Amino acid sequence: MQTRQTAGFQWPVRVYWEDTDAGGIVFYANYLKFFERARTEWLRSLGIEQRCLKDSTGGLFVVAETSIRYHRPARLDDELIVTASLIEKGRASLTIKQQALLKTEQQTTGNADVQAATLLCEGTIRIGWVNASSLQPERIPAAILGSLKT
Amino acid sequence: MQTRQTAGFQWPVRVYWEDTDAGGIVFYANYLKFFERARTEWLRSLGIEQRCLKDSTGGLFVVAETSIRYHRPARLDDELIVTASLIEKGRASLTIKQQALLKTEQQTTGNADVQAATLLCEGTIRIGWVNASSLQPERIPAAILGSLKT
Amino acid sequence: MQTRQTAGFQWPVRVYWEDTDAGGIVFYANYLKFFERARTEWLRSLGIEQRCLKDSTGGLFVVAETSIRYHRPARLDDELIVTASLIEKGRASLTIKQQALLKTEQQTTGNADVQAATLLCEGTIRIGWVNASSLQPERIPAAILGSLKT
Amino acid sequence: MQTRQTAGFQWPVRVYWEDTDAGGIVFYANYLKFFERARTEWLRSLGIEQRCLKDSTGGLFVVAETSIRYHRPARLDDELIVTASLIEKGRASLTIKQQALLKTEQQTTGNADVQAATLLCEGTIRIGWVNASSLQPERIPAAILGSLKT
Repeated sequence: MQTRQTAGFQWPVRVYWEDTDAGGIVFYANYLKFFERARTEWLRSLGIEQRCLKDSTGGLFVVAETSIRYHRPARLDDELIVTASLIEKGRASLTIKQQALLKTEQQTTGNADVQAATLLCEGTIRIGWVNASSLQPERIPAAILGSLKT
Repeated sequence: MQTRQTAGFQWPVRVYWEDTDAGGIVFYANYLKFFERARTEWLRSLGIEQRCLKDSTGGLFVVAETSIRYHRPARLDDELIVTASLIEKGRASLTIKQQALLKTEQQTTGNADVQAATLLCEGTIRIGWVNASSLQPERIPAAILGSLKT
Repeated sequence: MQTRQTAGFQWPVRVYWEDTDAGGIVFYANYLKFFERARTEWLRSLGIEQRCLKDSTGGLFVVAETSIRYHRPARLDDELIVTASLIEKGRASLTIKQQALLKTEQQTTGNADVQAATLLCEGTIRIGWVNASSLQPERIPAAILGSLKT
Repeated sequence: MQTRQTAGFQWPVRVYWEDTDAGGIVFYANYLKFFERARTEWLRSLGIEQRCLKDSTGGLFVVAETSIRYHRPARLDDELIVTASLIEKGRASLTIKQQALLKTEQQTTGNADVQAATLLCEGTIRIGWVNASSLQPERIPAAILGSLKT
């Protein structure tokens, strides 16, 4: 069983009925929802609210590329920790490494105590900035780039 | 076991992994997706394309009220027939009766032969017309009302 | 604008991209996901874990009936409060009243301070207890009924 | 604009409200639903029904790895063609290449006439066979392997 040091931004996700499928496990597409939630909360933690951003800049991030490995399944009622770490910052796109880890019982809820957990799913996600109307790629606004550090 | 005469517009829906949950059955919210697909296809069969409609009129239908009864569960790989029948036509909203039925093996694919099927889920959905920007209720455009008959 | 006293169990829900549709608002089926999360957390708050329950009793709750009214739309990044209040307790089914409210900026995160919020969506959900294999209705186990109070 | 020769198994998918998000385009996780539908229909076309399979063999396919590139967005009401082509057949896993293409207006519905379409999204999916109870990897049953050709 793999245990990992979690790093970067962390967001708790609980597995509900909606997330599972008839195999009794989380449906593979739903990890992309969990990853999106963690990316959104990571951006929010940096002061970046995407709805405001769209209204003020006329742009938004869209996913350009994903590469995901599914190691172990999550089940109903499981508590996950989903991470997001910026690993590459370009002028038009960002690459983020993300993991979904199963919280073990010894862990307390404070981030400081989350030191080891079973890795369920991990991957890299590249998001690009586009014009909200044309959906054509554009440079990420400087204010956003300035808020991010790798 | 209830068998019913199906009536009104019919749309086939197959149950995939995405639709099921860890109980081995279709998750209750997903029947609302099936119903929405059938309403959309019913409108399309009347010449009403919702994306065009939004672009041309600046309005869209939103759901105002639902009342659903779940009789029997659907499972992975099941073939459903989803119906939509307009039962009330107001100036600002429409009420549609919808059913999800399990296709039985004797049934052929032609609509003419679909005479009896097990009722899984049924309900009424009221949809209202709103301005796409303000989301405030407005009268349904005359061209749409003209295409509909109860 | 309607403001309401919230009552019963409360659960916070954030609106993410996954919840919205091309109308810019939360897709109508997704309120049923929010309601399910709140029911699950309400049961958990009473010591009832549904995965354990299925393993130990061979039964599970399934939704039998819903009646929902959509008053105002939620949008990306909105913070909602979702409530669950048991209003009827039968031998084979429970009826729960649920609301989704928009958290206003004045509200603090502590439940004690949540006194008024804009009502977005509300309804009643009846859930029945079934045998997990046959999916036939059965009496709710006494231990569960004992944990619930109307 | 890229146009491609489509190859392998093809399955039509219509974009509904449920598939889109507030950006006005199909939410990135939902292409994985489309891909799963096409894989399921490809297996069905070979005589492999997954629910029966689980009941008869006690095993199921789960996704082990995905690698996806998003080229252009799909929107509400778009008609897609989703493909599935087996590119690698191992004893415990299969690798499938999949594409989502936008059907253009010149195309007729018959497969024979689908010769060119705009590529929206493509990727490879590796699925592994697991025991349905333990979820541990196992060899793919010989009967299934026999039905597949790369």
